[in-house]
Amino acid sequence: MATVNRQWLLKERPLGMVGPEHFQLVESPMPEPDLAAGEVLLKTLMLGFDPAMRGWLMDVPSYLPPVAIGEPMRASGVGQVIRSENPDLPVGTLVQGLSNWQEYSIGSPQSQLPPMPLPAGTPPNLALSVFGTTSLTAYFGLLDVGQPRQGETVLVSGAAGATGSVVAQIARLKGCKVVGIAGGQEKCDWLRNACNIEAVIDYKQESLDSRIGELCPEGVNVFFDNVGGDTLQAAINHMADFGRLVLCGAIAGYNDEAPQPGPNNLMLLTTRRLRMEGFIVIDYLDRAAEAIDALTEWVMAGEIAWREDIQEGFENIPATLQRLFTGANEGKQLLKLAEPV
Amino acid sequence: MATVNRQWLLKERPLGMVGPEHFQLVESPMPEPDLAAGEVLLKTLMLGFDPAMRGWLMDVPSYLPPVAIGEPMRASGVGQVIRSENPDLPVGTLVQGLSNWQEYSIGSPQSQLPPMPLPAGTPPNLALSVFGTTSLTAYFGLLDVGQPRQGETVLVSGAAGATGSVVAQIARLKGCKVVGIAGGQEKCDWLRNACNIEAVIDYKQESLDSRIGELCPEGVNVFFDNVGGDTLQAAINHMADFGRLVLCGAIAGYNDEAPQPGPNNLMLLTTRRLRMEGFIVIDYLDRAAEAIDALTEWVMAGEIAWREDIQEGFENIPATLQRLFTGANEGKQLLKLAEPV
Repeated sequence: MATVNRQWLLKERPLGMVGPEHFQLVESPMPEPDLAAGEVLLKTLMLGFDPAMRGWLMDVPSYLPPVAIGEPMRASGVGQVIRSENPDLPVGTLVQGLSNWQEYSIGSPQSQLPPMPLPAGTPPNLALSVFGTTSLTAYFGLLDVGQPRQGETVLVSGAAGATGSVVAQIARLKGCKVVGIAGGQEKCDWLRNACNIEAVIDYKQESLDSRIGELCPEGVNVFFDNVGGDTLQAAINHMADFGRLVLCGAIAGYNDEAPQPGPNNLMLLTTRRLRMEGFIVIDYLDRAAEAIDALTEWVMAGEIAWREDIQEGFENIPATLQRLFTGANEGKQLLKLAEPV
Repeated sequence: MATVNRQWLLKERPLGMVGPEHFQLVESPMPEPDLAAGEVLLKTLMLGFDPAMRGWLMDVPSYLPPVAIGEPMRASGVGQVIRSENPDLPVGTLVQGLSNWQEYSIGSPQSQLPPMPLPAGTPPNLALSVFGTTSLTAYFGLLDVGQPRQGETVLVSGAAGATGSVVAQIARLKGCKVVGIAGGQEKCDWLRNACNIEAVIDYKQESLDSRIGELCPEGVNVFFDNVGGDTLQAAINHMADFGRLVLCGAIAGYNDEAPQPGPNNLMLLTTRRLRMEGFIVIDYLDRAAEAIDALTEWVMAGEIAWREDIQEGFENIPATLQRLFTGANEGKQLLKLAEPV
């Protein structure tokens, strides 16, 4: 058994683009072998990366406390139980939940998001990609917050991302007309060919505002936004009366050194009776089974495509986070640390 | 009977502050005496003024068509039937609805908002002030869109205005903690003394951001916004989780020559799960009786204060509109043209 626990600790809060220089790789002793009742010792097998992690690095009160300087960075992850004081999670069980950038950690039933066993036979990568929180975010954000009706037009930004691509495909499965916004030919081709999203805008090549107008001649009924900034402003211009704007994230601004001005056309929220609403998937986790059941059915039927970008190596963790913000990742960003035993 | 109909026509679209120079006073012949079935000839008795009128001057599609160059300006108003081909509206009936800046007009049952008889005994000024569309706006915007619960904190901007003051008082009557934002000592005193709104911020004297924080230590559950701009940004900073922002109007920007940037903190909509929603009172007019009944009960019980700023003189109509945007009006802005006969 290992006696050393490698960890990536938060060294300083990034101002601007987050990168490896903001974290410090240390070797710590293994967590105490004496576990309290209910606790498990977990070996981290795979880590997931999500743009929301950038927000956890900021020293402001939010839906989760900021990661403290000197603490291991928080992340979603899959681990395997290697020691257990919890009869529901015997040694060998694969679990998912909030993890950390470290090789070993203690999972406690008292934590805000305690470790949950993976459904039998689910590989770690799938638990973090198509059945992971990004897909739950897509499912509840689109259906509960956006409330699209059959035949309506749904516009999705960050449409080639882990969340956006699932949003676009669920909207298609619900009988909506879907328009996706993504950056670059490769991502747009994948949306068209693998995800069956016919209407795609390459914001790096095309004028967002005029293309949204062309592709949504009757206006946008639901805009699912992962990007914010100019993308949000352009979408507001083309909302239909009584449209809904689902604010999932705003990756365009996450690494800004200072807050950028918002859209200059919020008056349209009044004149067109628009609803703009934010949400956090954590509020929906008690309904996770509903989403997983639906996603499983769609995945089994071949109705939903997804892809994973799996990096490797503990030393590459911070650089892998940065891939989300440079747009380098193609699919759900994961990093593999170990195989299950 | 008069043979001349004075009218204020839209001469050119304002860019920046609207004023008398954008309208032209003309003398036209009286409307045709031959009325179609259902039509009535109306003598305008009183006009109401509302910030939303500024939007009707812009050449953009909206919830009502733009007023055309050369057309008489649209306004809310009360008129008296002086000739009738409508058995439901006999000569002498006082009616309200969308009117125009002219002494005489034809009211048609086919128009989008046909003339409606005033409840018996209602003076024209009350029909346009405490029982007018600004109060219906307050009632439905606060209760239907904002959905305040007893004990919650409701923040209102433009709180000394015709809409805002009714919002603040309805919120008080519903058991909410109310904080009003207004400009100047006189308006703040009126809110405190006449409207029984204890917590008032004078944005001309105090730091909006820090005062909202002090007066709403548990955060704002409902923000009813008539102002937009910096006021909206400051309010967003202090919203409680799951708060609602009701976008009624944004008078701060109505006379800007170019659109101003929006709030730089929309990311808080996501992390705090906020809902920001616009509405237009026209969508609620089929439920007007519900609001009028409630308002009547509160007015009769002395629970709602209001005030009116009644100007006079046909020639003063455009200058009276401008009073809304300079903050000169104290209370609902009206202009009296004639007494009922």
